[in-house]
Amino acid sequence: MTMNIREFRDRAHQLVDWMADFLEQVETLPVKSGVKPGEILKQLPASPPGKGESFDEIFADFQHAIMPGITHWQHPKFFAYFNANASPPSVLAEMLMATLGAQCMIWETSPAAAELEERTMEWLAKMLGLPAGWDGVIHDTASAATLISILSAREKLTGFASNRKGVGRTPMRVYATSETHSSIEKAVRIAGLGSENLVKVNTKDDLTMDPVALRKAIRQDREAGFLPLAVISTLGTTSTLAIDDLKTLVVVTNEEGVWHHVDAAYAGTAAILPEYAGLLEGIEKCDSFVFNPHKWMFVNFDCTAYFVKDREQLIRTFEILPEYLKTKSRGEVNDYRDWGIALGRRFRALKLWFVIRSYGVEGLQEKVRQHIGFGKQFEKWIKESSDFEIIYPRNLNFMVFRWHPKAVDEDELNKLNRELIERINRSGQMFLTHAVVKGKYGIRIVLGQTYLEDRHVRQAWEQINEMAAELNS
Amino acid sequence: MTMNIREFRDRAHQLVDWMADFLEQVETLPVKSGVKPGEILKQLPASPPGKGESFDEIFADFQHAIMPGITHWQHPKFFAYFNANASPPSVLAEMLMATLGAQCMIWETSPAAAELEERTMEWLAKMLGLPAGWDGVIHDTASAATLISILSAREKLTGFASNRKGVGRTPMRVYATSETHSSIEKAVRIAGLGSENLVKVNTKDDLTMDPVALRKAIRQDREAGFLPLAVISTLGTTSTLAIDDLKTLVVVTNEEGVWHHVDAAYAGTAAILPEYAGLLEGIEKCDSFVFNPHKWMFVNFDCTAYFVKDREQLIRTFEILPEYLKTKSRGEVNDYRDWGIALGRRFRALKLWFVIRSYGVEGLQEKVRQHIGFGKQFEKWIKESSDFEIIYPRNLNFMVFRWHPKAVDEDELNKLNRELIERINRSGQMFLTHAVVKGKYGIRIVLGQTYLEDRHVRQAWEQINEMAAELNS
Repeated sequence: MTMNIREFRDRAHQLVDWMADFLEQVETLPVKSGVKPGEILKQLPASPPGKGESFDEIFADFQHAIMPGITHWQHPKFFAYFNANASPPSVLAEMLMATLGAQCMIWETSPAAAELEERTMEWLAKMLGLPAGWDGVIHDTASAATLISILSAREKLTGFASNRKGVGRTPMRVYATSETHSSIEKAVRIAGLGSENLVKVNTKDDLTMDPVALRKAIRQDREAGFLPLAVISTLGTTSTLAIDDLKTLVVVTNEEGVWHHVDAAYAGTAAILPEYAGLLEGIEKCDSFVFNPHKWMFVNFDCTAYFVKDREQLIRTFEILPEYLKTKSRGEVNDYRDWGIALGRRFRALKLWFVIRSYGVEGLQEKVRQHIGFGKQFEKWIKESSDFEIIYPRNLNFMVFRWHPKAVDEDELNKLNRELIERINRSGQMFLTHAVVKGKYGIRIVLGQTYLEDRHVRQAWEQINEMAAELNS
Repeated sequence: MTMNIREFRDRAHQLVDWMADFLEQVETLPVKSGVKPGEILKQLPASPPGKGESFDEIFADFQHAIMPGITHWQHPKFFAYFNANASPPSVLAEMLMATLGAQCMIWETSPAAAELEERTMEWLAKMLGLPAGWDGVIHDTASAATLISILSAREKLTGFASNRKGVGRTPMRVYATSETHSSIEKAVRIAGLGSENLVKVNTKDDLTMDPVALRKAIRQDREAGFLPLAVISTLGTTSTLAIDDLKTLVVVTNEEGVWHHVDAAYAGTAAILPEYAGLLEGIEKCDSFVFNPHKWMFVNFDCTAYFVKDREQLIRTFEILPEYLKTKSRGEVNDYRDWGIALGRRFRALKLWFVIRSYGVEGLQEKVRQHIGFGKQFEKWIKESSDFEIIYPRNLNFMVFRWHPKAVDEDELNKLNRELIERINRSGQMFLTHAVVKGKYGIRIVLGQTYLEDRHVRQAWEQINEMAAELNS
C-alpha cells in the first residue's frame, strides 16, 4: 500500500498550500527554535515502523513534532550567521529537480544539466565581471570549493606528483588570517598538508590581510625551506565581513608566484552591482574564486559557484576514468564529475537558472541594493544612538555593534551584550549571532534575508532597544 | 516585479500537476536523451536577462529546451549505472526541505534536523542490523563518505599528527581491488597519500578481493617499510556487483590491525532483508560502513548513510571550533558539521524519514525483494536463451550478460555487444550500460528502479531480443 502517483498529486497539492501559507506566515513564527536538547528526539519512536504509515500521520508529525524544532532561515528577521536564502522561483526549481531526480555526474547521464550548468556559470561570470576565459562549476558548499582550490594548487606546485606519490617531505604552506573561515583549516588538514602549515598572516587594524606581512611570511618560509603554496584571501570574513584588499594582495601573490584563491562566499554577490565592481579588482591575477548563490543570491542551499582561471589544471587534478564511465561524448562536453570531489551531482543549475531569469539581473541588483540600504539605515540609527556603538564598521549590509550603556567597564559590557543576544533570540523576534572584535563581544547583524522589508528593519531596531532597556531596568 | 507568495502558490500548484503527469507518463518518454553535444547549449542565450521574466516563459523553456536533454532516471526501464531512485514520499519531503531552507550545520541552527538525523540513522542501523554502539551521519555521496573514512583512518594511524603536521615521510597504503569504485583512488589522492599507495589487491576468479592476497600485500608492505593504513572492501562493485566476503576479510584486517571500511553503496540496502543479513556478517569487526539510501532505498539523491564504530574518533578528525560557531548546547547534542567535510548541510533526514515511514520497513523489504525477483526472472530467461549468456553471475537484482550469436569470435562479440547497447539506448526504450568482464564486453542490467513492474521487465527482455535479431539480420 505504498503511495501511488494519484495520491502523490493530492498530497503535493496539499503541501503546496501548506508551503505558501508557511511563507506568508513565517514572520509570525519564532525565528530561533526554543526547544531544549533532546526534546525532538524523545518524540520520535526508537524503531522504524514495520507497516507503512499514512501520509496524514507523517505530515501531522512533521507539523507537531518537527516544526517546533526548526529555526527559520526563511524568516525575514533572520539576521544570524550568513543567510541561506531560498526564494519562490528557487523552490519551484527544487520541486522539478526532485521530480526528475537526475544524477548529473557526467554529460551523458543528463546532457541538459551539464549544458545548463555551463551556461548559467557563464552568466554568473558575466554578472560578476570575472575575466574572460575563466570557467565555472557548481559545488555544494564553499568548504568543498576551497578544498578543491587547495588541492589544485598542491598539484600545480608539485607537477601532479602529490596525487601520485602523496604529499612530499617539504611542507607546503597556505596563508590566510585569523579571520579566515574554518573551512580553510579543514581543507589544509584534509589535503594532508597539516594545520601547522596554515600560516596565520597578521591583519591590519581593520582585520584585513596585511600585504606586507604576507610577503614577509612567504619569504621567511621560503628561506626556511618551506614551499609557499597558496594564499586564501577573503572578501567578507565570517566574523566581521572584513574585505581584503585584493588588488594589493595580488601584487604579492603574483610576485611571489603563489596560488591565489578568493573566498567571497557571502559578499561576492555584491559584485553584480556596478558600484561594487571594485571588490573584484585584481581577480584576473588570481587562480580561483568562490561565492555562494545560496547565500545572498536567493538560490536554495546548496549552490556554490566556483570559478577557475585554468580549467585543464582543475580537471587534471580530479580526473579518474574507470571503464564504467567511458562515454563517446567525452572531450566534446563538460563532465563535471572531473571538476571536484563527488561523483554524484544534483541538477543544481536548474534553480540557478530559474532564479536569475525570474529576478533578472536588474531584479537581483535591486534586491541586493535594497539590503545594502537597510545596512546603511541601521548603521545611521546606531551612530545616532547614545546606547549603542559600532565596533566593526559596516560593509554592505553587515556590521558588528554592541549595546553600550553608560559607566560600564569592558568585562561588564561583554557580559551584558551576551545577555542581550540571548534575550533577543529567546524572544523569537529575531535571530542574531555574536562576534568578538579585539576582545569586545559584539552583535553581528546581516540584513539580507529574501523577505526582509523596511518595516522589519525598523521593528528590529525598536525591539533591540526595548530589550536592552528591559535588561537595564 | 519579482514573484510573490501568491504567485508562488499558483505556480507551485501548476508544477504539481506537471510533476504528477510526468511521473504517470515517464515510461512513455525515451529513457536516454538523444541530444547531441551542444544542442541544449545553443538554445540558451549567451547572457542573462536584464529584466525578470515571467514564469510562463521560464517554464515553457524548461519544457521545450531542457526536457529533451534529460535522461530519465525515474523511468522504470532505467537499467544503467546504479539507480538514483526518487519516490513519491521523498519528493514530498524535498518540497518541504526546499521551503524551510534550513541550514543544518549544527544543532543550534536546526535542532529538529539534527535530532531527526540522529533518530533516522538509528533506524537505518537497526534495519541493517549494524552493531549496537555504531553511529550514523548523512553525507551527500559515498565519494565523500569514503574520503571521510580514509581520513579517519589516517588520523587514527598517526595519532592525529597528519592533521597537524601533514602526511609524513612514510607512505601509508590503502588496499582495494581493481574492481573498487573510482572514488577510492580519488580519496587517496585528496588525502595526500598518493595513488601509487593505493594497492590493487588481486581478486579471486569471481572478482572479489582475495583474502590471501590481501594478507600478503599488507605483510610485504610492512616489511618494505610502508604503513598499511586501510582496506576498502566492497559489497557490490560497480562493474559486476561482486560482493566481497566480509567475514573472511575481517579476519585479515583485524589480525593485521588495519582500518576496514565497507563500501556497500548500492547493495547495502539488501541487508534489510533477513535472507540477506549474511552480507554484513563480520561488520562488527570493521570500522566504517557506507550505503546510499539514494540508490536502492528510494530516497532522492543526495542521501548517503555513513556509519562508524568510533564516533569520537570521527569527530576528532574533523572538528574545528571557531568563535562564531560556539554554542551553549555543544556537547549535549550532535553538531554534524564535525562529522564530515562541508560546514553547510541540507535537511536530508526529512526525506529519509518520510520514505521509511511511508513504505514502512516491510514495504521497503517487499520492494527490494520484488526487484531481486525480477533479477532471478531475467537470469532465468538468459539461461534459457540460446542467443544470450551470463558473463558475470547474478547477485541480487543485477547481472552482466551478453548477446552471443553462433559462430562469432570474441573480438566480434565485443563489437556486436557494443553495437547492441548503442542500438538499445538509441531506441529510447531502456538505458543500459556496459561492463568489461575479463576482456568480455558485456551488458550490465540493474533491475531496481522505483517504478519498475513485471510488465517492464518482460517488455525489456523482448525488446533486447528483437533488437539483437534486427542487428543480426
